[in-house]
Amino acid sequence: FGGTVESLDYEVIENYAYRQEQARRGKLYVWYYVGVKWFFALLIGIGTGLAAVLINISVENFAGWKYEWTFKIIQHSYVAGFIVYTMINLALVFSSVFIVTQFAPAAAGSGIPEIKGYLNGLTPVISGSIGSVGGGLALGKEGPLVHTGACIASLLGQGGSTKYHLSTRWLQVFKSDRDRRDLVTCGCAAGVAAAFRAPVGGVLFALEEVTSWWRSQLMWRVFFTSAVVAVVVRTAMGWCKSGSCGHFGSGGFIIWDLSDGQEDYSFEELLPMAIIGVIGGLLGALFNQLTLYITYWRRNYLHKKGNRVKIIEACLISVITSVISFGLPLFRECSACPSSDVTTDCPRPPGMYGNYVNFYCTKDNEYNDLATIFFNTQDDAIRNLFSAKTIHEYSAQSLLTFLVMFYSLAVVTFGTAVPAGQFVPGIMIGSTYGRLVGIFVVRLYKKLNIEEGTYALLGAASFLGGSMRMTVSLCVIMVEITNNLKLLPLIMLVLLISKAVGDAFNEGLYEEQARLRGIPLLESRPKNLMRKMTAKEACGNQKVSYFTRVVKVADAANILRTNSHNGFPVVDHTRSGETMVIGLILRSHLLVLLQSKADFQHSPLAVDMRSQSIPIRHSLSDFVKPVSSKGLSINDIHLSPDDLEMYIDLAPFVNPSPYVVPEDMSLTKVYNLFRQLGLRHIFVVPRASRVIGMITRKDLLFED
Amino acid sequence: FGGTVESLDYEVIENYAYRQEQARRGKLYVWYYVGVKWFFALLIGIGTGLAAVLINISVENFAGWKYEWTFKIIQHSYVAGFIVYTMINLALVFSSVFIVTQFAPAAAGSGIPEIKGYLNGLTPVISGSIGSVGGGLALGKEGPLVHTGACIASLLGQGGSTKYHLSTRWLQVFKSDRDRRDLVTCGCAAGVAAAFRAPVGGVLFALEEVTSWWRSQLMWRVFFTSAVVAVVVRTAMGWCKSGSCGHFGSGGFIIWDLSDGQEDYSFEELLPMAIIGVIGGLLGALFNQLTLYITYWRRNYLHKKGNRVKIIEACLISVITSVISFGLPLFRECSACPSSDVTTDCPRPPGMYGNYVNFYCTKDNEYNDLATIFFNTQDDAIRNLFSAKTIHEYSAQSLLTFLVMFYSLAVVTFGTAVPAGQFVPGIMIGSTYGRLVGIFVVRLYKKLNIEEGTYALLGAASFLGGSMRMTVSLCVIMVEITNNLKLLPLIMLVLLISKAVGDAFNEGLYEEQARLRGIPLLESRPKNLMRKMTAKEACGNQKVSYFTRVVKVADAANILRTNSHNGFPVVDHTRSGETMVIGLILRSHLLVLLQSKADFQHSPLAVDMRSQSIPIRHSLSDFVKPVSSKGLSINDIHLSPDDLEMYIDLAPFVNPSPYVVPEDMSLTKVYNLFRQLGLRHIFVVPRASRVIGMITRKDLLFED
Ligand SMILES: Nc1ncnc2c1ncn2[C@@H]1O[C@H](COP(=O)(O)OP(=O)(O)OP(=O)(O)O)[C@@H](O)[C@H]1O
Ligand SMILES: Nc1ncnc2c1ncn2[C@@H]1O[C@H](COP(=O)(O)OP(=O)(O)OP(=O)(O)O)[C@@H](O)[C@H]1O
Ligand SMILES: [Mg+2]
Ligand SMILES: [Mg+2]
Repeated sequence: FGGTVESLDYEVIENYAYRQEQARRGKLYVWYYVGVKWFFALLIGIGTGLAAVLINISVENFAGWKYEWTFKIIQHSYVAGFIVYTMINLALVFSSVFIVTQFAPAAAGSGIPEIKGYLNGLTPVISGSIGSVGGGLALGKEGPLVHTGACIASLLGQGGSTKYHLSTRWLQVFKSDRDRRDLVTCGCAAGVAAAFRAPVGGVLFALEEVTSWWRSQLMWRVFFTSAVVAVVVRTAMGWCKSGSCGHFGSGGFIIWDLSDGQEDYSFEELLPMAIIGVIGGLLGALFNQLTLYITYWRRNYLHKKGNRVKIIEACLISVITSVISFGLPLFRECSACPSSDVTTDCPRPPGMYGNYVNFYCTKDNEYNDLATIFFNTQDDAIRNLFSAKTIHEYSAQSLLTFLVMFYSLAVVTFGTAVPAGQFVPGIMIGSTYGRLVGIFVVRLYKKLNIEEGTYALLGAASFLGGSMRMTVSLCVIMVEITNNLKLLPLIMLVLLISKAVGDAFNEGLYEEQARLRGIPLLESRPKNLMRKMTAKEACGNQKVSYFTRVVKVADAANILRTNSHNGFPVVDHTRSGETMVIGLILRSHLLVLLQSKADFQHSPLAVDMRSQSIPIRHSLSDFVKPVSSKGLSINDIHLSPDDLEMYIDLAPFVNPSPYVVPEDMSLTKVYNLFRQLGLRHIFVVPRASRVIGMITRKDLLFED
Repeated sequence: FGGTVESLDYEVIENYAYRQEQARRGKLYVWYYVGVKWFFALLIGIGTGLAAVLINISVENFAGWKYEWTFKIIQHSYVAGFIVYTMINLALVFSSVFIVTQFAPAAAGSGIPEIKGYLNGLTPVISGSIGSVGGGLALGKEGPLVHTGACIASLLGQGGSTKYHLSTRWLQVFKSDRDRRDLVTCGCAAGVAAAFRAPVGGVLFALEEVTSWWRSQLMWRVFFTSAVVAVVVRTAMGWCKSGSCGHFGSGGFIIWDLSDGQEDYSFEELLPMAIIGVIGGLLGALFNQLTLYITYWRRNYLHKKGNRVKIIEACLISVITSVISFGLPLFRECSACPSSDVTTDCPRPPGMYGNYVNFYCTKDNEYNDLATIFFNTQDDAIRNLFSAKTIHEYSAQSLLTFLVMFYSLAVVTFGTAVPAGQFVPGIMIGSTYGRLVGIFVVRLYKKLNIEEGTYALLGAASFLGGSMRMTVSLCVIMVEITNNLKLLPLIMLVLLISKAVGDAFNEGLYEEQARLRGIPLLESRPKNLMRKMTAKEACGNQKVSYFTRVVKVADAANILRTNSHNGFPVVDHTRSGETMVIGLILRSHLLVLLQSKADFQHSPLAVDMRSQSIPIRHSLSDFVKPVSSKGLSINDIHLSPDDLEMYIDLAPFVNPSPYVVPEDMSLTKVYNLFRQLGLRHIFVVPRASRVIGMITRKDLLFED
C-alpha cells in the first residue's frame, strides 16, 4: 500500500467504444445485465453467510476444546494447564500469522479502512481469522468477515479470478468501477450482517461507512443481500440446534440476547448514562490516537524488517495475552456464590458456558469473577457482562483490572499481521466500564430494577460510538445484537454523547487508519476555509499537461513518463483555428492504446468521428482495469523507433464530457460536486461566453 | 397547489451579499449558527413528541368514550346504540372536516406527498386529525403527525411566524432553502418516530423518502431529533402508567407487542409467506391505482364545487363507515368461546380492550369475530389481529368480509378533506389477508408452533411494501412496532417480494400522488432513453432569455412579464468585446430589486466589483423567500415612468458560479448532477476552449 493509492473512477467514461457498446445492447442484454447483478448479490449473500457460519463454528470449537483441555489439566496442575493453554494459543496464532504473511498480506488488519477508500483485491482471510480469534487475541472476527464479503464481491465483479483461470466471459458484464464498487458495498453489508446476525445493521453500515452517497436502487440490492445472509445464517443455525456443531452449541439468531433485561428506566438514571457516554467518547478517542501512533511506528520501523518480525511480534503478543489472561485471575480471591439465587448454576459446571467460573478457588461453591471474564471466549465473556439478574457478580476491582489490561492488549494487538476486527474488543472494553458504572448506580440509587447488564450494553455502545463514530448503523447493530428494542432511546442518547465527545479530539478509527495508509478519504463536510477559495486557487500554479487530439507516439510516451497524472485533457483545433477541449483521456486507457499499437497511424490526420466507418479495434473490456494487479506502467511498454514516429488519434477514446467548473466557483461547491458524484477529475475552465440552453426540472421529467 | 409548484433552491446562491455576510461572520457566529440548528432539532423533537402524545391520548379517549357509551346503550336497544354511534362519529368527522376546510386547507391528506416535493407552509392539523381518526374513518393518525413535525420545522425555519408576529430576529438565521429543507427532514423523521414510537424507523423514513440525498451531518441531526422524540414520548407514556390517561390505558413504548409470538419458522413456511408478498404487491398496486383515479376525479370534479361539497362528502363517508362497521357484525353468527384457553377473557369484559368481543350474541360465553375487528379502534383491531395464541379466533369468512369492506372504505376515504395517514389502514388491510393465509397454513401444515398473528404481521408488511415501496425504513418500522427481531428475515423477504411485484405495475403511493398534484419529483434512476440524448437536445429549440449585466429597468420588467422562467443567465462584455456569462439571477431576487428600487442608477455604467466601496443596500435576509406566501409577482410591483428609464447593475446579485455542463454531455450525466446536488438550474454551454487547471482528490485534501 503506501501513499500511492489510486482513486476509483466512479464516472462512466462515455467514450466511443462505450457508446458503440450501448448502441449494440438490446433490451435482452439489459435484462441479462440486471439479472446478473441480482444473481451476484444472491451469491455474495450465500457465500458470506456460509463463511460466517464456518468461522463462527470453527472459532467456538477451537476455543471450546482449548478451554476444555485446560480446565481438565488444571484439576491436576496449574503449571501444566498454563503451559498447554499458552501453547495452544501460540499454535493458533502462529498458524494464522503464518498463513497471512505468506499467502495473503492484504488480509492483515480489519480491511474496513481499505474498503472505505479502495477495494483491496481478493485474499483468503477466513483461515487466518479462525486462528487469531480462536487463539485468544484481543480482536474480533467481524472485520475479516467484512473483508471476506468484499472479496467475494470483487471476485465476482471481475467475472471470476483470472489468476486461477476461473473466469468466464458470460459473467464479465461489469466493466466499470461503479458496478464493482456497488458489489463491494453489497459484500460489506453482507459481512456485517453475517458477523452480527444484524441484517438491517449491515445495510446501514454499508451505507453510512462505505459509500459516500446513496442511491435507492443500490440500497435495495444491498438490502436483498443482507436478507439472504440472514436466511442462510438462520438456516445454518437451525441445523446446529440438533447439537451437531460441537462446542458452538445450539446458537440462535441473536448473539447476546438481552430481551429479559431491564424493562424500564427512571429519570435519574439519565445522568450516569450520560457519564457512560462521556467516558466512551474519551476512551474511544484515546484508543484511536494510541492505535494511530502504534500503527505508524509499526509501519515505519517494525514491519519494514520483513515477515519474520511480523511473525515474532504476533507470537509475542499471543504469549503475553496468555500470561495475563491466565495469570491475573490467579491473584484474585474467589468470592462465595450468591445464595439467594437458585436458578443460576454457581459455580458453573465444568465444560459448560455461563457465569460464575470456578478457577483457582479453595472451596467448591466459590467463583473467580476475574476468570469469568478473562478466562473465556470473548463471546461468552460479553454474554456474562451483559447478563441480567447477576447483580454483584463482579467486583469493581476486577472490572477495573480487566479494563486496563484488555484495553492495553487491544491497543497493542491492533495492527499486528493477523486478520482483526475492532467491534468485539470494543464491546468488551465498553461493557466493562459500563458495568463498573452500573455497580455504582446500583449502590447509589438502591433500586432493584436497575440491571448492571444494561449499563454494560450502554457502555459497549458508547465505546464503539466514541471510537468508530457511526450513529444510526451502530445503533441498529446494538439493538439487533441484543434484541432489546426498549433500550433504543438510551442507546441513541449514549451514542450521541460519545460521538460528540470523541469528535472533539480526533477522527473515527477507520478514517484515522485510512489516512495513515495514504488512502485519500474526503470528509463529508467541506472545510470552512474552502468557502473563501476558488477552484482556480485550488489548482495552484499547476501547468496542465494535455494532449492534442492527434498526438505523436513519442510525445505521448514522453508526457506519460515525465509525470504521474492519471488524467489529461485532450485539445483540438476547430476549423477557425481556435482551440477546443474535446475531452479527458485516462492514463490507463492511453497505456492500453500504446501497448496494443492497433490504432497507430502514419498520418497526423484526424479520423472523421461522424462517419460510420470508424474501425473499432478495441472493445470496451480492453479498457477495464484489472482489479488484482497494479495495472500497466509506461515502463512496461516497449515502443520501437518506428512506433515512436507514428501518430495516434485520441478522439474515439476520450471521455467527451468530463465535468467542468468555471474558474471562480467557490471550492465548497467544487467539493460537493466532486464528492456527491464520486468524481476523479474536474476540469477548471474559463467562464463560458454564452449560454446555449437552460436545464431545469421540467426538462428532466420525461413521461413514459 | 396544482401544476405550478416551484422547486426549492438547494444551491447556495453565492452572490455579493452572501459573500459579504460570510466575510463578516466570526467564529462566534458559526458557533451560534450550529447551536441554533441543534436547538431547533431539539425543539422539533419535543414539539412533535408532545403533539403525538396529545393526538394519541385524545383519539383513544374519544374513541373509548364512544365505544363505552355505545356498548352501554346496546344493552337496552341496538337501534338507539346505532344512532348514538353514528351521531358521535358524524360529529367528530364533521368537526374535523370543518376545521380543516375553514382554517387550514393544506392540512387535508397525508402531507407526505407534499413534503416529498415541497414544503407546504404551516397548518394546524392536530385537531383535525383527532376528529377524523376518533370518528372511525378508515385512515390513520401518522400522516398528520408527519405533517405536524414538518410544520413545526418550517415554522422554526423562518424564525417564527410573521403572520402572528411571533418572529424574532435572533432566530432568523436560516436564510437558505437548504437549511430549511434540512429542518423539514428532521420534522418528518420526528413525525414518523412519534407516530410509531419507532425512532430509527423515523430516521430511515426521512432519509429514504424525503431527501433524495444523504449527508452524514444531516443524518446525525435527524438521529438526534428522533432520539428526543423517543425520550419525550417514553416519558409521557410513563406518566400514563399511573392511569391518568383515561381510555388511553397504560400505553407502553411498543405499539403492538409481538415479542411473545412465533419463535421459529420452518422451511415450508417460506412458500405461504412468499404468497403473502405477492398478494401484498398486487393489492398494494391496485390500491395505488384506485386512489389515483379517485383523487383525480375528486380534484377535477368534486372539490371544484367548494367547501360545502367537501364537508358533505366527508360526512357521507362517515355515515357509510358507521353503518358498515355497526351493521355487518349484526349479520354474523356468534361463535362459542374457546374452552381450552383459560388465560384470556372470553368474552372480554365490557369497557375493556382485547379479543373476543361479545356483540349481538345470544349467549354470554360467545363472541362475534367480525365485531372484534370491525367494532373497535384501529389500534385495538390490529392488536387483536396480530395477537398470538388465539388460533381459530377468526373465521375465514369474517376476515374476507372485513378485507373487502375495509379496502373499499380505505380507497374511498383516501383523499377526503380530512387529515389522513395511510400506514394504519394499510396495516389493517395487510394483517387481514395475512391472517387469512395464516388460517390456511395452520390447517395445511397442522403444526402448532405456527401463529396466525405472525402471518398477520407479514401481511401488514407486504401491503405497505406493495403500496409505499419503501424497503429498509419500512422493515425497521415494522420491527420497532412489534418488538420482534426474530422475524426480521421474514419481513425483509416479504417486503422484497411485494415491492418487486408492485413495481411491475405502477409507482409508489406517494410518488403517484405527488405526480398527480403536479409536484415535480425526479426518479432516482435516469430513464434509459436519456443515454442517447445530449444536454443540448434536452433544451430543445428554446431561445434562452437572458439579461445583460447593466439592464434598463423597463427591459427587465418586460422580460419578467413575458415569460415565467425562474432563472436567467446574466451576460457581460469583456474589454475585448467578447461576451461572457457572469452568472445566474433568480426571478425572485430580481423582483426584490425592482420593488425596493434602492439599486436603481441613472447611468448605464457598471460598478467596479473589485473596489471596496460598493454600497451594500441589501442584506442577505432581504432575498430570503417567504415560506408561507407565494412570493412577489411582477404584477404587484409598481414602477413609475421615471423608474423605467433607470438602470440596474445586476453583478452584485447574481450567483456567480452556477453549475454548467458542456452541450454534448449525455443527459444521464446531467440528470445525476441535477439530482445528486439538488439543483434548480443548469447552464448548457459550449465546449471550453482550454483547461485552466485540473482538480483531483489530492487538491481537495487539506490538512488541518
Ligand atoms: N493533466 C494534469 N496536468 C497538470 N496537473 C495535473 C494533471 N492531472 C492531475 N494534476 C495535478 O497533479 C496532482 C496529482 O494528480 P493525480 O492525477 O495523481 O491525482 P490524485 O489526486 O493522486 O488522484 P488519483 O491518482 O487517485 O486519481 C493534483 O494536484 C492534480 O491537480
Ligand atoms: N432563462 C430561460 N430562458 C429560456 N428558457 C428557460 C429559461 N429558464 C427556464 N427555461 C425553460 O423553461 C421551462 C420552464 O422553466 P422554469 O424556470 O419554470 O423551470 P421549472 O422546470 O418549472 O422549475 P421551477 O419553476 O420549479 O424552477 C424549462 O423547459 C426550461 O428549460
Ligand atoms: Mg495519484
Ligand atoms: Mg416553473
